[in-house]
Amino acid sequence: MSLNSLNTPAALVDVERLQRNVRRMQDRVDALGVAFRPHVKTTKCLDIVQLQRAAGARGITVSTLKEAARFHAAGFTDILYAVGIVPAKLPQALALRQGGCDLKLITDSVEGAQAVGAFARDHGHTFDVWIEIDSDGHRSGVPPEAPALLDIGRALAEGGTRLGGVMTHAGASYELDTPAALAALAEQERAGCVRAAERLRAAGWPCPVVSVGSTPTALSARALPGVTEVRAGVYVFFDLVMANVGVCAPDDIALSVLTTVIGHQADKGWAIVDAGWMAMSRDRGTQKQKHDYGYGQACTPEGEVIPGYVLSGANQEHGILSRAGAMDPEIARRFPVGTQLRILPNHACATGAQFPHYDALAADGSLREWPRFHGW
Amino acid sequence: MSLNSLNTPAALVDVERLQRNVRRMQDRVDALGVAFRPHVKTTKCLDIVQLQRAAGARGITVSTLKEAARFHAAGFTDILYAVGIVPAKLPQALALRQGGCDLKLITDSVEGAQAVGAFARDHGHTFDVWIEIDSDGHRSGVPPEAPALLDIGRALAEGGTRLGGVMTHAGASYELDTPAALAALAEQERAGCVRAAERLRAAGWPCPVVSVGSTPTALSARALPGVTEVRAGVYVFFDLVMANVGVCAPDDIALSVLTTVIGHQADKGWAIVDAGWMAMSRDRGTQKQKHDYGYGQACTPEGEVIPGYVLSGANQEHGILSRAGAMDPEIARRFPVGTQLRILPNHACATGAQFPHYDALAADGSLREWPRFHGW
Repeated sequence: MSLNSLNTPAALVDVERLQRNVRRMQDRVDALGVAFRPHVKTTKCLDIVQLQRAAGARGITVSTLKEAARFHAAGFTDILYAVGIVPAKLPQALALRQGGCDLKLITDSVEGAQAVGAFARDHGHTFDVWIEIDSDGHRSGVPPEAPALLDIGRALAEGGTRLGGVMTHAGASYELDTPAALAALAEQERAGCVRAAERLRAAGWPCPVVSVGSTPTALSARALPGVTEVRAGVYVFFDLVMANVGVCAPDDIALSVLTTVIGHQADKGWAIVDAGWMAMSRDRGTQKQKHDYGYGQACTPEGEVIPGYVLSGANQEHGILSRAGAMDPEIARRFPVGTQLRILPNHACATGAQFPHYDALAADGSLREWPRFHGW
Repeated sequence: MSLNSLNTPAALVDVERLQRNVRRMQDRVDALGVAFRPHVKTTKCLDIVQLQRAAGARGITVSTLKEAARFHAAGFTDILYAVGIVPAKLPQALALRQGGCDLKLITDSVEGAQAVGAFARDHGHTFDVWIEIDSDGHRSGVPPEAPALLDIGRALAEGGTRLGGVMTHAGASYELDTPAALAALAEQERAGCVRAAERLRAAGWPCPVVSVGSTPTALSARALPGVTEVRAGVYVFFDLVMANVGVCAPDDIALSVLTTVIGHQADKGWAIVDAGWMAMSRDRGTQKQKHDYGYGQACTPEGEVIPGYVLSGANQEHGILSRAGAMDPEIARRFPVGTQLRILPNHACATGAQFPHYDALAADGSLREWPRFHGW
């Protein structure tokens, strides 16, 4: 099989780059002396997560209970469900745990903790619950110094639950783009989460796990005293947002969309390709960053960046490829109908989700289908 | 089954609204005296397309050959593949036609027409090819007055192809928001496509079909002399972009995402819900329109708009629900953990694509799963 045999658009994974990214993060976290728990929401792909495990990952992080169920069925047991649990999802969580999955839940409120406890006691079960800490104000979590933290600890001590740890995600790191700012946020993330654990321990509750992470902070932390594990997801592919953040180069990006030129509007400098937003996703994450790549950066079929050529527009199954800045009057000659190109994505998690499978391209040129799942 | 039994996020279809939308478009196109060929890329759902056919649709439009194959397998034969054909996809197209599918292809270039012809002659087949007309400058197609139009006609007369018609899509209609501007663009779309057909006929090639359409122009056209059929897709669900364009009201929107409140950041006026961008899609189509709905408009579980409350932010599995303008200090009391809400989407085609099935809610409150497919 060759690239020419693939039906486009296709989600192409460069396995060499993928392996390099997996190795880089594992080495980094090993050097920091903590465990690594990759977030599988990026790929939802067993073939890839097995590579992460083989490289040294311990346990996985999931964003949906479907991911938990699928990976548990494939032999993973140590699973953190990193979205606040709600009562309606407790029956699914219980079924997973009763089936042998060591599933950890998270909460950031007293009412959440109480709901888990009440359900657990009704079912004669004890859930492992971690408290979500807000270390950067970007989303969920209880601040490390908040009085509510100890209220949640107290609620978790009422039976039916075991306080397994604290976790945080410094998602604000996606908005940074200098090593100094990233290192500072990594330290803020670490310090906040460790501080929360210390307050809980001082109140008398063991809090064995201190879990932090995002791809940018994991790669920018200088030391992680008090932390027991790091989580990260998008590093496995990287993407243009991460390149703008500064934690990878464009040629580290392991996921691209293989596309075919289907036409032109030569007087506008446009080539029309068969990768629209259905393939790329609607993610415009680089729009507010220092380099706006439109809907993606064009590369040769071999994966080399073609400087200046980006997907400047996207409809459902049409992408508009053009040169940023001055229009290219030679676009139709440069990229005739039938030309294959790779497009690097803004956000690998969003682009991957548009495809039922990845086409994994090995260094020897061989291709394999790696299925991924979607939905909840 | 009740809404409470659904796993959230879920793609909820209000069947009563859907049926009303189907009826409205069919009645409108019937009144214009032309055939209606719905675009099934919006739903990719057999249950829904069967309703469109039952209401009077003749033939369907698809955006991928996978849609063509799936709908042909389900008994649809008259299918227009409305994305410019490339040589690599001709074997799939041939297989469909040889299997009894009356598949129509489109092209907007001489090289495209020649490639289809050469492949067809090699395989002893004749393809039905329509010429794509650019009636508004927004994407693909050859302008009605371009010399190239007749060159394409000539290329299609060289054997292996039959010029079945001309088609256009005035996608620029999505950028308008007054009835007068929409009616004017509908007339421009009609006139351009009819003019192209007349030029081809004057050159001696029969051009039986004149196919136009987009949801906004289809609903705004005052008369369609010379047109034989209309195409439209998103009208079946409608969405917030269409509400801003002015061709529907928010309570016509038949697709919403059912979500559950999972937490709060009360001092910021945020409720966190389990519909993030993985559920809503990253589409921010209302961003530049007169009313920006963020990632979607919140409604009660019964589907009534809650004025001012929108998804102001989205991570992969987290949505941030807040009041536009002044923050709501009572958000945690207004929407406690476990509260279900419906979120109306910016762009129904993009939101639907995030789900493996729709949950179809009938007027009597009963629920059914309607599968949809994704990928290529």
